[in-house]
Amino acid sequence: MSLKLKLKEILDLFPEAQTSGDYQPEFISGISSLEQAESHDLSFLGNPKYRKFLDDSNAGVILLPEGESTSPKDGQLFIFLDSPSTGLASICRLLEDKLFPAPKPGLHPTSFKEEGAQIDPSSVIGAFCYVGENAIIGENAIIGTHCHVGRNVIIGKGCRLHPGVKILSNCIIGNDVVINAGVIVGSEGYGFEQDNSGHQKIPHLGKVIIEDNVEIGANTCIDRARFDETRIGKGTKIDNLVQVGHNVQIGKNCLIVAQVGISGSVVIEDDVIVGGQAGFAGHLRVGKGAKIAGQSGITKSVEPGAFLKGNPALPFQLAQRISVLQRKLPDLFNRFAQENSKD
Amino acid sequence: MSLKLKLKEILDLFPEAQTSGDYQPEFISGISSLEQAESHDLSFLGNPKYRKFLDDSNAGVILLPEGESTSPKDGQLFIFLDSPSTGLASICRLLEDKLFPAPKPGLHPTSFKEEGAQIDPSSVIGAFCYVGENAIIGENAIIGTHCHVGRNVIIGKGCRLHPGVKILSNCIIGNDVVINAGVIVGSEGYGFEQDNSGHQKIPHLGKVIIEDNVEIGANTCIDRARFDETRIGKGTKIDNLVQVGHNVQIGKNCLIVAQVGISGSVVIEDDVIVGGQAGFAGHLRVGKGAKIAGQSGITKSVEPGAFLKGNPALPFQLAQRISVLQRKLPDLFNRFAQENSKD
Amino acid sequence: MSLKLKLKEILDLFPEAQTSGDYQPEFISGISSLEQAESHDLSFLGNPKYRKFLDDSNAGVILLPEGESTSPKDGQLFIFLDSPSTGLASICRLLEDKLFPAPKPGLHPTSFKEEGAQIDPSSVIGAFCYVGENAIIGENAIIGTHCHVGRNVIIGKGCRLHPGVKILSNCIIGNDVVINAGVIVGSEGYGFEQDNSGHQKIPHLGKVIIEDNVEIGANTCIDRARFDETRIGKGTKIDNLVQVGHNVQIGKNCLIVAQVGISGSVVIEDDVIVGGQAGFAGHLRVGKGAKIAGQSGITKSVEPGAFLKGNPALPFQLAQRISVLQRKLPDLFNRFAQENSKD
Repeated sequence: MSLKLKLKEILDLFPEAQTSGDYQPEFISGISSLEQAESHDLSFLGNPKYRKFLDDSNAGVILLPEGESTSPKDGQLFIFLDSPSTGLASICRLLEDKLFPAPKPGLHPTSFKEEGAQIDPSSVIGAFCYVGENAIIGENAIIGTHCHVGRNVIIGKGCRLHPGVKILSNCIIGNDVVINAGVIVGSEGYGFEQDNSGHQKIPHLGKVIIEDNVEIGANTCIDRARFDETRIGKGTKIDNLVQVGHNVQIGKNCLIVAQVGISGSVVIEDDVIVGGQAGFAGHLRVGKGAKIAGQSGITKSVEPGAFLKGNPALPFQLAQRISVLQRKLPDLFNRFAQENSKD
Repeated sequence: MSLKLKLKEILDLFPEAQTSGDYQPEFISGISSLEQAESHDLSFLGNPKYRKFLDDSNAGVILLPEGESTSPKDGQLFIFLDSPSTGLASICRLLEDKLFPAPKPGLHPTSFKEEGAQIDPSSVIGAFCYVGENAIIGENAIIGTHCHVGRNVIIGKGCRLHPGVKILSNCIIGNDVVINAGVIVGSEGYGFEQDNSGHQKIPHLGKVIIEDNVEIGANTCIDRARFDETRIGKGTKIDNLVQVGHNVQIGKNCLIVAQVGISGSVVIEDDVIVGGQAGFAGHLRVGKGAKIAGQSGITKSVEPGAFLKGNPALPFQLAQRISVLQRKLPDLFNRFAQENSKD
Repeated sequence: MSLKLKLKEILDLFPEAQTSGDYQPEFISGISSLEQAESHDLSFLGNPKYRKFLDDSNAGVILLPEGESTSPKDGQLFIFLDSPSTGLASICRLLEDKLFPAPKPGLHPTSFKEEGAQIDPSSVIGAFCYVGENAIIGENAIIGTHCHVGRNVIIGKGCRLHPGVKILSNCIIGNDVVINAGVIVGSEGYGFEQDNSGHQKIPHLGKVIIEDNVEIGANTCIDRARFDETRIGKGTKIDNLVQVGHNVQIGKNCLIVAQVGISGSVVIEDDVIVGGQAGFAGHLRVGKGAKIAGQSGITKSVEPGAFLKGNPALPFQLAQRISVLQRKLPDLFNRFAQENSKD
């Protein structure tokens, strides 16, 4: 971080917190773990398993749970909080506002808006943005530079589109959605029918619907549906460079790690976790709460709560066991050859 | 879909078609399968295997093959066509024009064109586009917002570039090519030579040539050649987030599914199908009509017509058989241990 | 290549070189291998293993090592150089300047610069670029169209950003860095903490630091760190569509091939080579000089100098041996069944 945070600003966040120690630095210049923090850093004890690092920590300021009885060393200040993790989050938000300040509301003079677009006056439209006919952008949205908000697109309250995001015609984005740079929402689905003269395109007339509190990672692509909608459920978090095919339905609170590929018409139920680079064949269903290990290849529907790995995917424990046995194949073949030579 | 289509507009597409039933809704508000359609939807019987869903279908309007003898229920209208699939395609095109209308021809006032660029007056250049020196853009091309058409680039007739596409210097795009949002055509190839001071860049002086009727998915990257050309053959369809390395030659009418990676100088002959996330090592040849299963890793040239799976890739049937046997490895090891303990 | 290079321009690069043969074409119109070159092409003998193609080569002009004793045929010109490869590189740079000429220094009239941004007058800022508050762009940098250079970003001397690159706030780019089109530097890291109401975002307050002479391929994404920095070491070359997670540290002179995924907090030491589509789980260390085969899945730290393949990754030779034995599994199962039936 390239910014100093005044100790007073930190203390002002917790007016009722008790403190211990007489260290009164004017500034904190970093946040770090108990183990790695230096004297100008703030640290925190969020998880009891790191308690062992407290006594030897060199952090200047430490957020501690109420009831913690250790005494600060010289040059240390302890701040006691009901929840040090929540306290840290408050400090991080303060820092975030300083490090990544929101631009002033309004349309940047270089941006362009078509007739009939409705942009809430509290929202920010960055440089070189294009806002299409009849698009609606809600309160307190921040649209980064070089974004495209297509015809009839609706963007909810408090959304953040980072630079270069393209939301194509008719797509709908809920409230408090974060879309990282370079994301494409509403690209044409990959569907062709073969006839004598080659692969004929199937028009994709649908849209993409992204529900509230979704986050989408940089350069990810989400295709629109053939007729109706591709949908990303509330609270789902998608990482960078993920492919979401046409008509895919992803449930609520899923985690989809980087470079995953989800083929057309797949249904992923709520609370599913998918590791990086895993792939799904089309038209299958992944049950609620399933976990898919990274790089797995899923070619059949998955039961709720299953934990699968590999291609073809197997239950995780079985996949691990088979991996161990594969390492023993050279030995098995050798021993089998010996046995046979005895006969 | 957020649009209603008048029944009259549909019937006008097929002036000589016979109909049956007295249902005369003013609007159709959706298109769906026989099984899932509701009373306001249009459906179709394109493939005889779905015939079984016809009697119980709730679709308001159904496209049927001529000669079909079932009678419509109350509140249904049957339209008999030589080819219901072709009829559906006509309806979809009508809808597409309404849902995604083409902008008016001409250069958007915010776009920028260098001296010597030739843009056909029938084509559309969207907001914030850059058209480089001596670039040529053909008839009825539609260039979306934030596109870059580099120096000496040629774009053929009827091409569609979606928002944010970058076509770098000297590349040539044929006629009726569709390039989805965020695609990069003509990036530098990944080639370095190591000397004592590190990896020295090999300049990439070539171009990319994309033939007629190719479609390219969102955020895909196609590198330019070292000296001559990277080429995508006529009618080939590439999905999202695919990597095409320098000097790659892809034949005609291939299908390359999302997130495939094709290393430098690979030759893929006509009619090849590559499943998602498959990868190809450099400098190999994939024969005409070969099929590569998703996530396969191809490290050797592939015979025409072969169907391979896995890494290392094996003939599909063998790969499937080995997958089944791998699941039996725990049992085999157990039984082998028992046999040996008998001795 | 769509350009002709005058023979005189080539000869002027090597004023002290000896030549043999009386061929004096006005132009060279291509560069090709000894085996494939035609009479208007220039070729070269850079590696002794291609010596066998020299006698039958049809190249019009050939760069040869000093001491080579073959005589040119009619219509051929030999140019003798201390290092034909270095000579070829000089010719390629000459061609590159002609094929991809740098635009004139200065800000394009359509670009936009915030207060306090410092742009060296020798650098080029392309059309529709945005340069944020307090950003610094060094000497002779070339920033392509549609780039975003965020607040407080520093870009060193001689850097090349191709069109559509987004460098987000606070990131630092060294000297002579090449960033291909569509790259995202400084996107939010993928980090969430689960509580009762879902996945809560962990703010990412850090930055990305890219050291000198790094090259980054098209549409690659590099996330910023949680508190401090994600770092790409000097001379490292990253290919297209690679994912680099938050807090990753990549050493010097590494090669990271296309579509690799590197999870958060991974440390990759110097001189590591990673094949395409390989993936790394979070928080592990890859030792200096390690080699990782394409599509490998690395879930544990890797020893320096190791060469691994597969998922789970094994030493390369063992992985190859096991692959061979897997093909023999059907036979092993058959023979085992026969042995048992004897009992």
